[in-house]
Amino acid sequence: MTCGLARKYEINSDMGEGFGRWKMGPDEELMPLIDVANIACGFHAGDPSIMLKTIRLCKKYGVRAGAHPGLQDLFGFGRRKIEVDTGDMYAMILYQVGSLKSMLDAEGVELSHIKPHGELFFYMQRDKGIMEAVLKACATFKVPVYASHNPEQEAMCNEMGIPFQGEMYVDVDYSPEGKLVPVAQSQIATPELCHQRALDATMEDTGIDNNGTKFKFGFEGKPFSICLHSDAPTVLENAKEVRRAVDKANQVKFIMEMTQATHN
Amino acid sequence: MTCGLARKYEINSDMGEGFGRWKMGPDEELMPLIDVANIACGFHAGDPSIMLKTIRLCKKYGVRAGAHPGLQDLFGFGRRKIEVDTGDMYAMILYQVGSLKSMLDAEGVELSHIKPHGELFFYMQRDKGIMEAVLKACATFKVPVYASHNPEQEAMCNEMGIPFQGEMYVDVDYSPEGKLVPVAQSQIATPELCHQRALDATMEDTGIDNNGTKFKFGFEGKPFSICLHSDAPTVLENAKEVRRAVDKANQVKFIMEMTQATHN
Amino acid sequence: MTCGLARKYEINSDMGEGFGRWKMGPDEELMPLIDVANIACGFHAGDPSIMLKTIRLCKKYGVRAGAHPGLQDLFGFGRRKIEVDTGDMYAMILYQVGSLKSMLDAEGVELSHIKPHGELFFYMQRDKGIMEAVLKACATFKVPVYASHNPEQEAMCNEMGIPFQGEMYVDVDYSPEGKLVPVAQSQIATPELCHQRALDATMEDTGIDNNGTKFKFGFEGKPFSICLHSDAPTVLENAKEVRRAVDKANQVKFIMEMTQATHN
Amino acid sequence: MTCGLARKYEINSDMGEGFGRWKMGPDEELMPLIDVANIACGFHAGDPSIMLKTIRLCKKYGVRAGAHPGLQDLFGFGRRKIEVDTGDMYAMILYQVGSLKSMLDAEGVELSHIKPHGELFFYMQRDKGIMEAVLKACATFKVPVYASHNPEQEAMCNEMGIPFQGEMYVDVDYSPEGKLVPVAQSQIATPELCHQRALDATMEDTGIDNNGTKFKFGFEGKPFSICLHSDAPTVLENAKEVRRAVDKANQVKFIMEMTQATHN
Repeated sequence: MTCGLARKYEINSDMGEGFGRWKMGPDEELMPLIDVANIACGFHAGDPSIMLKTIRLCKKYGVRAGAHPGLQDLFGFGRRKIEVDTGDMYAMILYQVGSLKSMLDAEGVELSHIKPHGELFFYMQRDKGIMEAVLKACATFKVPVYASHNPEQEAMCNEMGIPFQGEMYVDVDYSPEGKLVPVAQSQIATPELCHQRALDATMEDTGIDNNGTKFKFGFEGKPFSICLHSDAPTVLENAKEVRRAVDKANQVKFIMEMTQATHN
Repeated sequence: MTCGLARKYEINSDMGEGFGRWKMGPDEELMPLIDVANIACGFHAGDPSIMLKTIRLCKKYGVRAGAHPGLQDLFGFGRRKIEVDTGDMYAMILYQVGSLKSMLDAEGVELSHIKPHGELFFYMQRDKGIMEAVLKACATFKVPVYASHNPEQEAMCNEMGIPFQGEMYVDVDYSPEGKLVPVAQSQIATPELCHQRALDATMEDTGIDNNGTKFKFGFEGKPFSICLHSDAPTVLENAKEVRRAVDKANQVKFIMEMTQATHN
Repeated sequence: MTCGLARKYEINSDMGEGFGRWKMGPDEELMPLIDVANIACGFHAGDPSIMLKTIRLCKKYGVRAGAHPGLQDLFGFGRRKIEVDTGDMYAMILYQVGSLKSMLDAEGVELSHIKPHGELFFYMQRDKGIMEAVLKACATFKVPVYASHNPEQEAMCNEMGIPFQGEMYVDVDYSPEGKLVPVAQSQIATPELCHQRALDATMEDTGIDNNGTKFKFGFEGKPFSICLHSDAPTVLENAKEVRRAVDKANQVKFIMEMTQATHN
Repeated sequence: MTCGLARKYEINSDMGEGFGRWKMGPDEELMPLIDVANIACGFHAGDPSIMLKTIRLCKKYGVRAGAHPGLQDLFGFGRRKIEVDTGDMYAMILYQVGSLKSMLDAEGVELSHIKPHGELFFYMQRDKGIMEAVLKACATFKVPVYASHNPEQEAMCNEMGIPFQGEMYVDVDYSPEGKLVPVAQSQIATPELCHQRALDATMEDTGIDNNGTKFKFGFEGKPFSICLHSDAPTVLENAKEVRRAVDKANQVKFIMEMTQATHN
């Protein structure tokens, strides 16, 4: 089993997305409900003090702490398209993850993973040079990279020796092409809907796209990570319901593994 | 002997102090003349790409690469007084040095030291809480901190297990109180003056203050670092002359050590 | 009567203090309760889009729109001490107020006043060169400058032909020296306390300092402005209560003026 | 004749493109050789103090002062593609031009024109919504907008009552499609080449594209503006040669107009 990858279904969420006096989601309330935090590194959100505070919250609640680098765009929250030279991109990722890494070192916490934020993620899907630059920078840190299913990215990760951690979302829609639909164009994600989607994905490896058609995620039994938007209005309720689904899925998984072990 | 400290007289200089398309000193021409580079980390100057480029120049010219963190002040080049909370300061230093550290890791270069820039240095001298916050952050990296002679800072470094590397300047004046005089109020540092000062400091442990009075630096035979301002108009000539002086001082030092060794 | 000064007691409040996706106070809910908005200009808070949106809210609710320039410090929300050269300061104020002015022009709204924000206000009180630089820039716009009682500033405004609009606060304490006590060190400002303070100030020209001693504000019957912190947790309740007090005070003032006019 | 448009051939150049301690072109040496300055407004380059200093240089040398707004991108010098919402764009242009306008007001200088910088110019050519947002903001200031020949933009300017000032470049190449070729891909612009191109354009309305084919600019006798890159290595020599050509062209133009007047 590749080091650092999820052994069970888990919940990840973006954390530390304030700046200075400005706040974003209810970080402290959310921490007890999740497994993994993606910590903003100051380019699209976050500042050194917020980063450190978030790391300390992770310690307090036993949540794994990963880096959430983004485009340099506080105004646009890292969600606008910005043209970046591949050399600049490589350096920007090293810069951001390194800044978080040093704080984790100071606090005696391991860097658990790296998850590109918002438009940086989409940029990687669109532009192979950018994908390569980002992953090359990530490779320095020897931790899994989180991303939605993408065979090309998974292959590139494999070549570079980077563990690829698959993830999916339960609080936004998927298009028939299997792409994430932006929050604004998705149906409202009620806690119940999140719960159902989490169950379907973990138990059946299926989702329902925004045309109402069932599809396979293709995780094929490998444990994956479920991402929750920490700035959704009902995020705490969503998280409680997804927690229930994930805990149940892990219990079922455990029993099945035990049973299988007994039979062998 | 404490790990990481200078074994010989050496020259350090601030490097990578451009931003985006803007340039500051003649980095590449200066590199062959110095021993140690203080690399700006993006707060008062520098950006990720310039940092990486500077690290690669260090590799090319065999120059040791250290972090040069500063106050968050691109407009004022880190030379203006800015009030910083000690908790914020601790996080800002970790952030900056960590960002450089990750690039050094990616390039297979060791972090050689940390040298606080401009007003950050003066802030530490003025405010013990700030000094403590900065040094506590530095301690994470286990490398020497460079600074002008300051018994209080040296004592605090010792307590925290941080090697303290003494340094002095030859291209600005010293006041009778032993303080550095700002560039604008110093006499123009000709290459000859820089050379003479470097010789006096290394050979005699003395300088001449801006009243014309000779004083002792107090290095007491310990090798120290000589800092050159990379943005001085004649920096390349200054560097050549100081290089000559430093090489000569190291030769003398070597002969004396050999002689002493033979006699024992 | 000097053009632009308050003819009645009024309420002013800081508006548009978000940045990008981040929000601060409940601007739209507060607008119907106030008379005058101090609009952040992008240095300590605000961005061009938020500025424009806030101007449009002012139009919608018939609130006067003024500029709220601050120190260039998004991280510290303009509340940290930053050393600024007087020439730089002059230019920074022109820059900020000018940027707002052009949006007001585009929207057909008059610039009503200028009110320096946070640490910029305190800097002016501490440093006469800074006060002069700020006021010299303000003079370009020919509108009143808002500030707490300060004879020196009032005199300088008079010399420069700038109307000086006195103001006071009801949601923070005053020290025995007549200075504003920072929010964190003030007693919690309940809506009832705000109401009582607004009544005392408008009706009696008095306040009670944080030693419990009554003092005179010295407005001597001139109408003044009452500032409410839009980021106080109970700001909407505070505003409702102060609105009641101010409306009552203006009614009394009107009746007294009418009576006086009748007797003459 | 539309108010504000060039009556003679003229030279414009970008000015004030430093930031803080960083400098770009030789502004003061260039000022005596040009007619019109495009002053950066702090988004892609420039800061309030540099803006004010540049305005004072304009006054000193009798150069007209216009605004040079750009994308918010100090790192990329406003030359990278950045996705901007049209509402944000409108506000950003008002913000930048307004900030300069207030300094011009303070200095008693008129705003002569607006010229979008770098990628902002190209964005307008690519995206009609962006063109409309920029021009709508420009319309507030009632001054000419400078741009290379573009019928669509000229038509939109006409609709909005904005004078359209045509311009051309002599220090970069043109493609066969009449597009500007980026500096890096253009042949080196020697002073002689600049001189010849300026003569051809003013005297014959022609240029030679990078295939060696002669083409018509289509100014049809209307005076236009010639832009010089102030960051070209030989900008001062270029400017001297283009000055000679422009002065000569204006002399010829004057004589022809006099002759024509005499004949009528």
